[in-house]
Amino acid sequence: MRPILFLSDFGDSEYAGICRAVIAGIAPGAPLIDLSHHVPPFDVAAGALVALDAARYAPPGSVWLAVVDPGVGAGRRALALRTGRGDLMVGPDNGLLLPAAAALGGVAGAWSLENPAYRLPQISATFHGRDLFAPAAAHLARGVEPQELGPPVEAGSLVRAPLPEPRLEEGPEPRLRATVVLFDPFGSARLRAPAALLAALALEPGRPALLRAGGRSWRLVVGRTFADVPEGAPLLLEDSSGDILVAVHRGSAREQLGLERGQEVEIGRGGV
Amino acid sequence: MRPILFLSDFGDSEYAGICRAVIAGIAPGAPLIDLSHHVPPFDVAAGALVALDAARYAPPGSVWLAVVDPGVGAGRRALALRTGRGDLMVGPDNGLLLPAAAALGGVAGAWSLENPAYRLPQISATFHGRDLFAPAAAHLARGVEPQELGPPVEAGSLVRAPLPEPRLEEGPEPRLRATVVLFDPFGSARLRAPAALLAALALEPGRPALLRAGGRSWRLVVGRTFADVPEGAPLLLEDSSGDILVAVHRGSAREQLGLERGQEVEIGRGGV
Amino acid sequence: MRPILFLSDFGDSEYAGICRAVIAGIAPGAPLIDLSHHVPPFDVAAGALVALDAARYAPPGSVWLAVVDPGVGAGRRALALRTGRGDLMVGPDNGLLLPAAAALGGVAGAWSLENPAYRLPQISATFHGRDLFAPAAAHLARGVEPQELGPPVEAGSLVRAPLPEPRLEEGPEPRLRATVVLFDPFGSARLRAPAALLAALALEPGRPALLRAGGRSWRLVVGRTFADVPEGAPLLLEDSSGDILVAVHRGSAREQLGLERGQEVEIGRGGV
Repeated sequence: MRPILFLSDFGDSEYAGICRAVIAGIAPGAPLIDLSHHVPPFDVAAGALVALDAARYAPPGSVWLAVVDPGVGAGRRALALRTGRGDLMVGPDNGLLLPAAAALGGVAGAWSLENPAYRLPQISATFHGRDLFAPAAAHLARGVEPQELGPPVEAGSLVRAPLPEPRLEEGPEPRLRATVVLFDPFGSARLRAPAALLAALALEPGRPALLRAGGRSWRLVVGRTFADVPEGAPLLLEDSSGDILVAVHRGSAREQLGLERGQEVEIGRGGV
Repeated sequence: MRPILFLSDFGDSEYAGICRAVIAGIAPGAPLIDLSHHVPPFDVAAGALVALDAARYAPPGSVWLAVVDPGVGAGRRALALRTGRGDLMVGPDNGLLLPAAAALGGVAGAWSLENPAYRLPQISATFHGRDLFAPAAAHLARGVEPQELGPPVEAGSLVRAPLPEPRLEEGPEPRLRATVVLFDPFGSARLRAPAALLAALALEPGRPALLRAGGRSWRLVVGRTFADVPEGAPLLLEDSSGDILVAVHRGSAREQLGLERGQEVEIGRGGV
Repeated sequence: MRPILFLSDFGDSEYAGICRAVIAGIAPGAPLIDLSHHVPPFDVAAGALVALDAARYAPPGSVWLAVVDPGVGAGRRALALRTGRGDLMVGPDNGLLLPAAAALGGVAGAWSLENPAYRLPQISATFHGRDLFAPAAAHLARGVEPQELGPPVEAGSLVRAPLPEPRLEEGPEPRLRATVVLFDPFGSARLRAPAALLAALALEPGRPALLRAGGRSWRLVVGRTFADVPEGAPLLLEDSSGDILVAVHRGSAREQLGLERGQEVEIGRGGV
């Protein structure tokens, strides 16, 4: 049995549990690993980043079941993918799985989930996680080949992930514009921007920086770890996935700086 | 080992985790499937609907462990049930399990959890999930027969689920009165009313409807899927369990329409 | 394979899921039991109590993985412990595991997680749960001995848990001062004080008591179970872990009495 890695925006609802019941019925004994069910609702970009973060740590050959699916019932394709490394992935054709697949050797094959033998008998208009994706993942876990699930799909036709890319602006006062994509459980804001871009601004650890967001600005320090600043002080640092994190030592950047998901922020040098 | 399906209102607390530890000690290796731990606190009706929704998808022969138990310590009976299909169920005698049991062939046997051999040595006044129900479920999972857990109980004496039934009012302006019982993770409101009642009002998909709730009213459309209306617009549709859902496309009906759990709403025809 | 009991303050984030993926890669098939991931952020005292509560119910010989780690990246030691009973525990050296270890026979051995063979190749500054603790727990689950993980540590040098102790004040009007350490899912407030201290105040079940908190005071009753008072009325009772609980029957003491975590409250006799 391949293990199943399960990611969704089902939150605290019973939807994840009902998918688990479906899986247990089709593939009893398949190990089920909950990655997260708290991707912000409908946020395909955030879900794609969570999947990407997990990709480096996932057991090779796992089956991914990812459901962040604002287009359910509106005709988007339902997919099975095979990665270059041999992992199998199931989810909607909205880009959710592509960054993770790229990190696992790229898309080596893609199929449309159209074979009724591997779906539930009835397909609802609103809960394809239960009716379509969970059954497909369970069948893959017990050894069904993805090409049995439906006709092949051109890899080039897959919908890309809607990830907001960072922009580095050169000049006498260079700055980085990047988007808040996720908050961690402590309220730290993760930017969609690799920490290497801080170095491009000559913002090495220990250097002062300027953060602008929502019409306000803060002077803060670039650190290596939270403890580089006093409790309650803000800082920029490289997070555990290699991106830029806006944080407050033992506090919440979300609350203290008033940041919001999807907000663009600007980072510049803070020296005089 | 039978798999255990676990449902509770323990929320984000450690109560579910402590029950898991109890189960792992009694029935090591029994597969544990978390259905949901976020039934609204004390809400037996909501818990009963979540269990009913899951029933169609649960592996036959599973052990259900369901704990939404506002009467803990107040003398309500603690039960084991056998369904007509052969599933085993453990929970308080407050109706929580009866709709699911009815969907699984009815109650074929009921027993009161009184045998001290299948409880923890000490029974607290407030946490029967840990002391009584989890041990019973674990013993059932490892093969104990439910009749060993205590004396039989008359099926007719079981407390019924407190489900608010919909009322269809005929007349020149027919209308449906139904109760909001649950919100899904996206803020859509599930009514305790089968979608077939919309047809009884001649509210087919595509037809305009009128929703009244809390002294306000909205014109909205009956759809088949969220995408039948523009983003931000409200609609009525059949949800994945066959009931009526009040939703907003890529939005939250809870916030946008100000709906609350337990609220009665009224649906009528919206045409002029 | 030893089962792994996993406790953290990762909340609704994907951090717990990424740790699960790491564990599945190192120790496939090891049973993973989620105790809780909703310890209040950074709250080592609350985490230590949750672990202590679970200790009585954990299967002997389990591996504990506990991550509430406000000092991550600031030089605190990372530990493996062996309890007198033979359990193995992994977590930061901040007292998080010591009350549970004491309940399981005491600390019979302690080691510092310094052997690079049992860590991930790269150690981030902010996510030792993923890079250090989860790998150590997974290796222990598959049979590695804790002394292989790094050099021994003096048990006497371990950081103690920052638990706020109750204070009983004698005199003509004896009173108990204790701290709210946790709320249960229903909003009941758990005090860091054993219920036996109520008896020291002659507060047996059925007796009136006085609760002072935040400049306000309430008359309430000592009960054995919630149903000893009318719905909506407050009460004091022994909770399922043996500590004092401030509760409201079918209501929330947190909301109704305005209690907060970390707040000191005072309990005295309520008779005239």
